[in-house]
Amino acid sequence: MSMLLQEVVGELSKLPGIGRRTALRLAMHLLRMECDSVDDMTTAIARFRHDIKHCTCCNNLSDTELCPICTDAERDRSTICVVEQVADLLSIENTHQYRGLYHVLGGVISPMQGIAPSDLKIDLLCDRIEQGGVKEVILAISTSVEGETTLFYLMSRLRRFEGLRITSIARGIGFGDELEYVDELTITHAMLNRREIE
Amino acid sequence: MSMLLQEVVGELSKLPGIGRRTALRLAMHLLRMECDSVDDMTTAIARFRHDIKHCTCCNNLSDTELCPICTDAERDRSTICVVEQVADLLSIENTHQYRGLYHVLGGVISPMQGIAPSDLKIDLLCDRIEQGGVKEVILAISTSVEGETTLFYLMSRLRRFEGLRITSIARGIGFGDELEYVDELTITHAMLNRREIE
Repeated sequence: MSMLLQEVVGELSKLPGIGRRTALRLAMHLLRMECDSVDDMTTAIARFRHDIKHCTCCNNLSDTELCPICTDAERDRSTICVVEQVADLLSIENTHQYRGLYHVLGGVISPMQGIAPSDLKIDLLCDRIEQGGVKEVILAISTSVEGETTLFYLMSRLRRFEGLRITSIARGIGFGDELEYVDELTITHAMLNRREIE
Repeated sequence: MSMLLQEVVGELSKLPGIGRRTALRLAMHLLRMECDSVDDMTTAIARFRHDIKHCTCCNNLSDTELCPICTDAERDRSTICVVEQVADLLSIENTHQYRGLYHVLGGVISPMQGIAPSDLKIDLLCDRIEQGGVKEVILAISTSVEGETTLFYLMSRLRRFEGLRITSIARGIGFGDELEYVDELTITHAMLNRREIE
């Protein structure tokens, strides 16, 4: 095989979910693309890796010291939604319903993967709350074992802030989910947290 | 969303089979990679796109004028295996069973996609055979409608070479295929072309 082809296939197959066969298909696609388009792509990748920053306030990805959400004067600064990762923040932003601020932990506590509370941006969150003005912290953490551990730990850290409302996003049956296929734990939660129909 | 992130997601999602969600996941993975590793990747992509050549003899991808297969003195120069694309050549090479040369057409005749015989490297193939020394041409073309059209057209071009053996790779039940799930056409072919057990 051509060395150049071998190299590009080797590099692309280092990416998650991309095996050698997919890498080869991608390489063949690159050949069909204009040189300029390929250059645009490699430049975007290199610039992203070298120049991206983490917002010093909320740990969101940002081009600048502070991210556009933290600097947005229109947003409600009294509410902070805590998420595991940037992708979760983007999912919530896509709903266009939430107008508060965020805090990106950068993962969940996982002894198995050697992620301790100190590896997450929990101190930074406490500092933010200490500065005052925060009335509610919404915990939007996944319901995995690691997520629950993180939730528990966060609660122990946040409880000391007097008057701070700590909430968790609602658990229940998703829209479009078939009850038949929903797991028992979710159904149990959904039954216990049932609401009056108004 | 950060402009740098938006750009890299936009560029990555131009690749086939990569939507915005996968592109975002890849971008997050890039952040976890060392800067040097990302640079190696972008360099490999750029070098591949800019410097790769097509072998002037067989149309295989090559770093040089002639590909390593065409210049390999150990290979049987009297046999040419005709394939649609480089990926097919690589699949056959991976078996380590075939020791002849190749000819990469660069696609199949497809009026629907506007690919005419003149868009494929068929003249180049005829030139190679005209130069003499070729005893057999193996057609390893897929069995799609376009493949069959291409096979038919190739036959019409190759028949004029006297004494040239023209063969096609065997069609039949693949190893590991369950007869129950094999299509009727393949079974019909496999029955008609049955062999004595030796």
